[in-house]
Amino acid sequence: MHSFAQLLPIFEEEFLNSLPFPVAPVSLYEPCSYLLGLGGKRVRPIACLMSHELFGEIDEDAKNAAKAIELFHNFSLIHDDIMDKAPLRRGFPTVHAKYGLTSGILSGDVMCIYAYHCLSLVHRSLPQVLQLFNKTAIEVCEGQQMDMDFECRNDVSIEEYIHMITLKTSVLLATSMKIGALTGGATTGNADKLYEFGKHVGIAFQLQDDYLDAFGDAQKLGKQNGGDILANKKTFLLIKALELATDEQRTELLYWLEQSGAEKVNAILSLYRNIGVDVLCQHAVHHYSLLAFQYLEEVAVVSKRKEALHELASYLLLRDK
Amino acid sequence: MHSFAQLLPIFEEEFLNSLPFPVAPVSLYEPCSYLLGLGGKRVRPIACLMSHELFGEIDEDAKNAAKAIELFHNFSLIHDDIMDKAPLRRGFPTVHAKYGLTSGILSGDVMCIYAYHCLSLVHRSLPQVLQLFNKTAIEVCEGQQMDMDFECRNDVSIEEYIHMITLKTSVLLATSMKIGALTGGATTGNADKLYEFGKHVGIAFQLQDDYLDAFGDAQKLGKQNGGDILANKKTFLLIKALELATDEQRTELLYWLEQSGAEKVNAILSLYRNIGVDVLCQHAVHHYSLLAFQYLEEVAVVSKRKEALHELASYLLLRDK
Repeated sequence: MHSFAQLLPIFEEEFLNSLPFPVAPVSLYEPCSYLLGLGGKRVRPIACLMSHELFGEIDEDAKNAAKAIELFHNFSLIHDDIMDKAPLRRGFPTVHAKYGLTSGILSGDVMCIYAYHCLSLVHRSLPQVLQLFNKTAIEVCEGQQMDMDFECRNDVSIEEYIHMITLKTSVLLATSMKIGALTGGATTGNADKLYEFGKHVGIAFQLQDDYLDAFGDAQKLGKQNGGDILANKKTFLLIKALELATDEQRTELLYWLEQSGAEKVNAILSLYRNIGVDVLCQHAVHHYSLLAFQYLEEVAVVSKRKEALHELASYLLLRDK
Repeated sequence: MHSFAQLLPIFEEEFLNSLPFPVAPVSLYEPCSYLLGLGGKRVRPIACLMSHELFGEIDEDAKNAAKAIELFHNFSLIHDDIMDKAPLRRGFPTVHAKYGLTSGILSGDVMCIYAYHCLSLVHRSLPQVLQLFNKTAIEVCEGQQMDMDFECRNDVSIEEYIHMITLKTSVLLATSMKIGALTGGATTGNADKLYEFGKHVGIAFQLQDDYLDAFGDAQKLGKQNGGDILANKKTFLLIKALELATDEQRTELLYWLEQSGAEKVNAILSLYRNIGVDVLCQHAVHHYSLLAFQYLEEVAVVSKRKEALHELASYLLLRDK
């Protein structure tokens, strides 16, 4: 059993040294290497390896599955950044900003196919792994489309929002864990529990992200508070505030949504506090975290073996940056 | 054994009625249904079914493989149209022109994943089928990138051009046939011959396309001649003309490449005839067609069974529109 800190260099070396990218066409593969070289937390592939280790030694199947998941995640980042018109990713220019729209689309496409290439090298439970991966990949696209659709709507419910973040961000973490389990030889029952664990960690993680963007310590986060507020992003906080505001608060909130600048951020933060959605958001994080740990508890493996996954979840959920 | 005319309605019904697209999000799936509903020749999936029929009855494996291939082809069309800034496809607005860039990127992505979904339902030779499909999908992306790169180059050689069209258009037809064969129970030897057959048909087809765009009967084609000429597209004709022109012809050709309108088309067509690249292009079509038929000949199946594939290739290669 390895900790996150032990697994990370194992994965990194495997990932960056043994990727099957050829040299040419340079304009196709350089953008791929560029993005992967920018790093990232590698939470999903490490979660896959950890789940695998609950049931068996890390083998080629585990490594190939972990690689497939990280490649798929990065593919979705490239295309999402185009759709979000994002100039920066991990502090550096996004792929399309650096290499243009064509390379952005095509590098994303080929990275997605390389994800399937790595997945096709898995031996154990391949049909099951492949079908789960496909289902999840489709859901990630649906989640991204819902997120885009929400931009032009003012009547998004909390249920719809939770559904959207589940698809857009949680199911890939859930699937990382389930595929790790399946390739490690887990029973379907245990693999399903790990899926639910990952899914609920993912939801709690995204809600914590919403909270920190508004109320986090700007210094620790290394960025200004209120990016979501300035962009009028439909977060848990905004949706819940629109739902619970008194008529007066609602009028005020709608007024500030039309404004911009630091004054807007401060006014909306103050409204959020008065309506009480800061506390509600922390409750929701707590709720989904509890559910997550219950599912982990139910995985039929001795507790000692689950420590790494427990630590990973705690790190993701209790973070303040 | 069925002819193209018999297989087409079988495939169409299967394809459009049993696709696994859900209803929501509408903004994700409507663009998919829109493009698939515009039709298309369905050459690749029918070629897959025909190859399969050389060795076995058409079954679910054959149908799922054929669907996967047609979905992948349509995915690549959506993204290519974005990169080519194409307003029309099959006479109707392209997906991104009708639904916007975000839907174009994301509908393409999800269609690619649905292609893998259909492929994952194949039982016979799944690992082999999957690896071949991945290799081909990667090559298609590489071919598209090379095509994009060629736009800004004036020193593309014929060898590079043939390599590019092989990747961009031929390998998918080749793979359609090989996957049809593999899921039908063919030996690797026969499957490989069918791959080479499809590949050479594909190359000859693209060269014939280059020829017809310049010298075809405008009325039969239903469009003006010279679309490639007006766009300065690097075709067999232009590349070969730049290679073989005398100094004087080259100067004239470079002059006309800077111009526009009907006068440009006529001047360049006349140069093509004088340099003789029209005849050379027809020779090349003939050369690759002959190679194709030789490979088909070598497939160890009684000639009678190969009639449908022979007819399909003849239809593709001897067309005048």
